[in-house]
Amino acid sequence: MAIRNTGPLLSRLRDLMKLKYLGEPIHGYIVFSEDAHQNEYISACDQRRAFITGFTGSAGVALITQTEALLWIDGRYFIQAEQQLDENWTQMKMGLPETPTLSEWLTKNMKSGSRIGVDADLITYSEWRRINKEIKHKGINLVALDTNLIDRMWSDRPATPSNLVKPLNIKFSGKKCGEKVEEVRQKMNEKNATILLITALDEIAWLLNLRGSDIIYNPVFYSYVIVTHTDVHLFVDDKKLSIAVSEHFKSENLSVIIQPYEKLHSFFSDILASDSCKTGNVWVSAKSSYNLVNMVPKSNRISKPTPIPLMKAIKNSVEINGLKNAHIKDGAALCSYFAWLEENISQGNLTEISAAEKLLSFRSLQEDFVSLSFETISSSGPNSGIIHYAPTPETDRKLSVDEMYLCDSGGQFLDGTTDVTRTLHFGTPSNYQKECFTRVFKGQANLAMSKFPHKILGNCLDSYARRFLWDVGLDYMHGTGHGIGSYLNVHEGPMGISWREIPNDPGLQSGMFLSNEPGYYEKDFGIRLEDIVLVKDSITDYKMPQRPFLQFETVTLCPIQTKMLVIDLLTDKEIDYLNEYHSKCLQTLTPLLEKLGDQRAITWLKKETQIIQR
Amino acid sequence: MAIRNTGPLLSRLRDLMKLKYLGEPIHGYIVFSEDAHQNEYISACDQRRAFITGFTGSAGVALITQTEALLWIDGRYFIQAEQQLDENWTQMKMGLPETPTLSEWLTKNMKSGSRIGVDADLITYSEWRRINKEIKHKGINLVALDTNLIDRMWSDRPATPSNLVKPLNIKFSGKKCGEKVEEVRQKMNEKNATILLITALDEIAWLLNLRGSDIIYNPVFYSYVIVTHTDVHLFVDDKKLSIAVSEHFKSENLSVIIQPYEKLHSFFSDILASDSCKTGNVWVSAKSSYNLVNMVPKSNRISKPTPIPLMKAIKNSVEINGLKNAHIKDGAALCSYFAWLEENISQGNLTEISAAEKLLSFRSLQEDFVSLSFETISSSGPNSGIIHYAPTPETDRKLSVDEMYLCDSGGQFLDGTTDVTRTLHFGTPSNYQKECFTRVFKGQANLAMSKFPHKILGNCLDSYARRFLWDVGLDYMHGTGHGIGSYLNVHEGPMGISWREIPNDPGLQSGMFLSNEPGYYEKDFGIRLEDIVLVKDSITDYKMPQRPFLQFETVTLCPIQTKMLVIDLLTDKEIDYLNEYHSKCLQTLTPLLEKLGDQRAITWLKKETQIIQR
Repeated sequence: MAIRNTGPLLSRLRDLMKLKYLGEPIHGYIVFSEDAHQNEYISACDQRRAFITGFTGSAGVALITQTEALLWIDGRYFIQAEQQLDENWTQMKMGLPETPTLSEWLTKNMKSGSRIGVDADLITYSEWRRINKEIKHKGINLVALDTNLIDRMWSDRPATPSNLVKPLNIKFSGKKCGEKVEEVRQKMNEKNATILLITALDEIAWLLNLRGSDIIYNPVFYSYVIVTHTDVHLFVDDKKLSIAVSEHFKSENLSVIIQPYEKLHSFFSDILASDSCKTGNVWVSAKSSYNLVNMVPKSNRISKPTPIPLMKAIKNSVEINGLKNAHIKDGAALCSYFAWLEENISQGNLTEISAAEKLLSFRSLQEDFVSLSFETISSSGPNSGIIHYAPTPETDRKLSVDEMYLCDSGGQFLDGTTDVTRTLHFGTPSNYQKECFTRVFKGQANLAMSKFPHKILGNCLDSYARRFLWDVGLDYMHGTGHGIGSYLNVHEGPMGISWREIPNDPGLQSGMFLSNEPGYYEKDFGIRLEDIVLVKDSITDYKMPQRPFLQFETVTLCPIQTKMLVIDLLTDKEIDYLNEYHSKCLQTLTPLLEKLGDQRAITWLKKETQIIQR
Repeated sequence: MAIRNTGPLLSRLRDLMKLKYLGEPIHGYIVFSEDAHQNEYISACDQRRAFITGFTGSAGVALITQTEALLWIDGRYFIQAEQQLDENWTQMKMGLPETPTLSEWLTKNMKSGSRIGVDADLITYSEWRRINKEIKHKGINLVALDTNLIDRMWSDRPATPSNLVKPLNIKFSGKKCGEKVEEVRQKMNEKNATILLITALDEIAWLLNLRGSDIIYNPVFYSYVIVTHTDVHLFVDDKKLSIAVSEHFKSENLSVIIQPYEKLHSFFSDILASDSCKTGNVWVSAKSSYNLVNMVPKSNRISKPTPIPLMKAIKNSVEINGLKNAHIKDGAALCSYFAWLEENISQGNLTEISAAEKLLSFRSLQEDFVSLSFETISSSGPNSGIIHYAPTPETDRKLSVDEMYLCDSGGQFLDGTTDVTRTLHFGTPSNYQKECFTRVFKGQANLAMSKFPHKILGNCLDSYARRFLWDVGLDYMHGTGHGIGSYLNVHEGPMGISWREIPNDPGLQSGMFLSNEPGYYEKDFGIRLEDIVLVKDSITDYKMPQRPFLQFETVTLCPIQTKMLVIDLLTDKEIDYLNEYHSKCLQTLTPLLEKLGDQRAITWLKKETQIIQR
């Protein structure tokens, strides 16, 4: 079910690779998924990797040589890639013992002296360094090309979006941007940094209390920011800025110099040559592009993450209340949806896409709703086994009482971003499906109930969510928890919960929000249960000196389908947890559903939150 | 209770720091714990950090400036350092939120332009790079001194030991050294390496199937090895080598060129200038000294760990059987000891040291016993709260039925190394002590029962051992598991089980042996339960494609004191685990105790392994 024949494209690309770049042809060309701001979700104009491979998943790295076309993808996408790649492409399944990494493949298959081309605006500095380090011992080198070979072939490439930027009211942000910039400058002082370059769009949106819509689902706008001790330079297409933005800066005590977006590289180069740069350090995250980081002399370069990801991750009290409120509204919308679905699914004419549209309509009824926070994963039967599936007209499947239905969705509200997954069966699940579901639930519940020391890495908690699957030889090939923004990106760092090490993870701290989302996937069905949890101080029976403890509070409110549970596999503690959770769902969501007048949802919620007993 | 006044030493050192090194005085001097081979246990001649600080623990870093003397230590040593440091020293408790790291302290307290002296033979390359990277942005630099300032003041410094080296019989090693070297060369080929320098003494002992006794508890000998595609150079004082060693090399098909130990640096320098070096890479671990690694040009340097730690960690079937057998003998010795202790403790004349001597005498009775594998931690009451305490005449405490007794000990047997901890109370423990003990036991049992995917990092399992302490706000400030040698070092890498990330951890693999040792420590008592576990393939209810599962097998055999357990806090699964474990102890150890004719131990073992019921 490949969506296009990539043969002609690949042969044109291979011709381009034979031209002379910096003196010589290149022997391989790497196409990453990221844009110049290393966004996870990218605009249509930046979908270069999808253009050349046909694979539309959010993550993946393509390597094209004169004889091979390889795509490295992670476990979320094994099945999707199989469906989308044509016979010109070889799928490299990351994480499996027999799959070499990109670097391992290069060192094993390319001759010494090989030149591997990369667009150095579209690769992070850290990624460049890592790959180069891994391949140079075989005499293979990355080559920074000043032209993008995909763009040269991409005749109908969409234009770069340029939508209006809007201020975020202080009642949602909780802190003026003038204050945020001062805090950033304090962090700069600690590192003797006189210049900070910010390239990540969500960091800029957070810092300036602005939101945009250049990228679907992410309320950000194309821009760069340079902070010095005296100035804040915002590089942005000024057509995006209304008078509201300058009034916003004034009311939040920040003076901002607006510069054209395209001027960033030349301005940065000038400022690097200036005196202020000589007396202090220049801070630019190694997650910025190789081109930008490489402009800064090593001797006074700080390449750690900017201070913003951690500041942004620790929500203030306004944001905490906002996120909780957003999840209440989101929970009500989900109840309306699942109640409607249960009533209508047996008619047999609902599909993954039409159902997702109905869900959007319920979310849209909620106050301060802006948009979805990512493409809804409305998936039935085999499609639910595809971890990051989203239905397309080609794959759209009829919903049925004979299949599991997995729905992973979220909204952007002015007061917060949501992300929730529930898996339901509207007919009779098999015992095996119930066992798998129960083990996924046990993992989620045990992670939710855990207590842990301040700043412990999420890696240390990941196995709580997997243990009951591991007990029987099962696992899921994705992380357990990611950070989430406050009306910002649905995935944000710097912390996370995963078996994979997260570079520069500052550990779990009070005020952070993360997802808690174990799952299990097979060819014929998939299960995922995803809640958002708040990290907060914990009161424990005992106390150790200087070792504060934390715990989670689940803020997502939507019933877990109890008919999917094998009660005998649950402990008393897990049963109590679920009953208390359901009672909270019932109490919190009913008033809002009453206000909306959705009697069907109220009835469904009451039924789904009935006390379970051994 | 400081053991010496370090004032005069510090003032002499500060005078030495004012002399000119590479043109200028130094403003700080760092003294690490390691010797030139980065051994954990070091000879008396290398105890430079203990000499200058008075603190005798195995780990710690000292920094001396003109006004400050600081010692960074980890949680194991907080109490011991408090007892041993005099008023000239400030204790820097690592891991506590308010404690800056060495680098943070330097950047906050030293002026730009400060020069911090280090003996570059005694610091690893990776440590040098890390520190230098962290401090250079403040204009502070490490300076490699070609003289060791401590040695210049240390008039009665002991001589370097030079004991006889002995071959390890193939019936214990399970693989000829000729074969091991060939396997190492294959790993070198994969990285296009023509030269491999080995500086870690246990790697050399393992590779050559030789054992020594230059370092107490570690059966290793001072040496370096260089492996090329044609030769193996062993740099060692040839007085250590008997004819047995050359016969050993012959019988195991390895030709070895013996060179003087002192010649390593000059030979390495010569070989780096030779042609063979120009056509390939030079492999020297970043854990080797800064001086040695820095000799290799960056362009063809491989600074990853040598291939040996992983090869050494995955035991072959001969080693697996040997280690199991060593633990049976060790368990019998412990039963003899604890039975004797129970009979004699109430007399009131036993002390930590006299008891430890008795334990040694029981161990010595066992076949192929060579020595202890580390200094016995025989600790009573408050001393048991000191994580890596070992009794000295000054601290030696009478054993009493009113206090907890923690005994952490191990032996070197020709067939394997052991390391085991049991905590007992011979009187009436408090309810709180019992609760803490029970939570420690639950952690150990749940880790022991876990199943997990092949190559998962130990970090992901660490919380299994802590969870029941975390539940009530308690924790222990040390890792949960370390690798252990096969008649080699009691602590070995490259894997481990810890909340701290272990650099270059290859993940858990079948054939590895690790400790499983949660604990809990307060001022008045300490608890630790330590078993050694083997990682082995697991048979699970279900199977995922290409995702083999592993589990642990506990090889340590010695009862857990059931009177310390609060049965109500245990699950049925945990009770079953303990009963099965005790039944295995009884069945396996009784025949050996019968052979030894120790009726007291047999009676004690029977009593201590009685089935417990809810």
